[in-house]
Amino acid sequence: MLKLPASLQRLINEFSKLPGIGPKSAQRLAFYLLKKDNVEILSLSDSVKDVRTDITFCSDCHNMAESNPCSVCSDTTRNRQLICVVEEPLDAIALDKTGSYNGLFHVLGGVLNPMEGITADQLNINSLIDRINKLGATEIIIATNPNLEGETTSMHIAKLLRETPVKISRIARGLPMGGDLEYADEVTLQRALEGRREF
Amino acid sequence: MLKLPASLQRLINEFSKLPGIGPKSAQRLAFYLLKKDNVEILSLSDSVKDVRTDITFCSDCHNMAESNPCSVCSDTTRNRQLICVVEEPLDAIALDKTGSYNGLFHVLGGVLNPMEGITADQLNINSLIDRINKLGATEIIIATNPNLEGETTSMHIAKLLRETPVKISRIARGLPMGGDLEYADEVTLQRALEGRREF
Repeated sequence: MLKLPASLQRLINEFSKLPGIGPKSAQRLAFYLLKKDNVEILSLSDSVKDVRTDITFCSDCHNMAESNPCSVCSDTTRNRQLICVVEEPLDAIALDKTGSYNGLFHVLGGVLNPMEGITADQLNINSLIDRINKLGATEIIIATNPNLEGETTSMHIAKLLRETPVKISRIARGLPMGGDLEYADEVTLQRALEGRREF
Repeated sequence: MLKLPASLQRLINEFSKLPGIGPKSAQRLAFYLLKKDNVEILSLSDSVKDVRTDITFCSDCHNMAESNPCSVCSDTTRNRQLICVVEEPLDAIALDKTGSYNGLFHVLGGVLNPMEGITADQLNINSLIDRINKLGATEIIIATNPNLEGETTSMHIAKLLRETPVKISRIARGLPMGGDLEYADEVTLQRALEGRREF
């Protein structure tokens, strides 16, 4: 039976392991690389190998960073009484990109998920409380994702902080800009109604 | 502004260059790798680097192979008077997998495409004619893809071989198995009608 050369088949197998890449996409990627010159192939190979080289974690906010403390935590022009709690580093980057947030971040490193055995102890929740006390934070914005796990996590944190004087808010849920009311799901519409604001 | 560590951003950029992978998918892939252990990361990195190691091309059929001549061309149990002409190595593998083809293959290495400057000289067409003469082939099955370029290439080859005694056929075009007549396009239906066979 006709088979692909072993080195090519191996690369296809490796690509297939990546999330969202099926056997056909893996084949396409491998054949694409095959046609590229050695410089490009080595560039991809090296950047895979070195992916962790520059990465450290900020011991204050637990965000992925190149230095410890990270550029946000060491930035004295930011509002250090305001902390935005996010699930993952990319969430912090997305919020920071908007340009309309000038406080600090706190990366939980995941969400509560009893099905996958992820409990509050595995998230950076205790260090959040320590930080609030240390910084004398006045407001916490909980920006976990608007899904079951995100909502559960956000409620858990809100409950823990209820006794403290710190103001706790949750980012708004509603229709996304450019969204279509007709196609929005019921929960989104419900949240959009609940969260309505006066003109 | 909050940014991703340089090594991670570099990997995201490299992944984004691959076909069908946008910036968001590239991010997802890079973060996925970040969570993997070093063995898995090195395994991907090495297989990218070594993708060409075992690959050579068969000087008879121009297929990608581990040896020259390839396993098909050196297999004496195959029908050496029957040659199936395909565009790319994967096409040959797909046809061979069916188990219902026992002849040789000939890989063109592409299709005629004047828009992209690919002319007959750049395809393995001359060597096909040499092979037909050398092997004394009796039938050529043209199995280029059923699209504009594939049809053009197939007609070009058929025209070249018209003067020779060799029998030339083209794989059938029609409705794919499991396909839906209602949703089939007009050209496919037209080809299915033209290619009808008696019970």
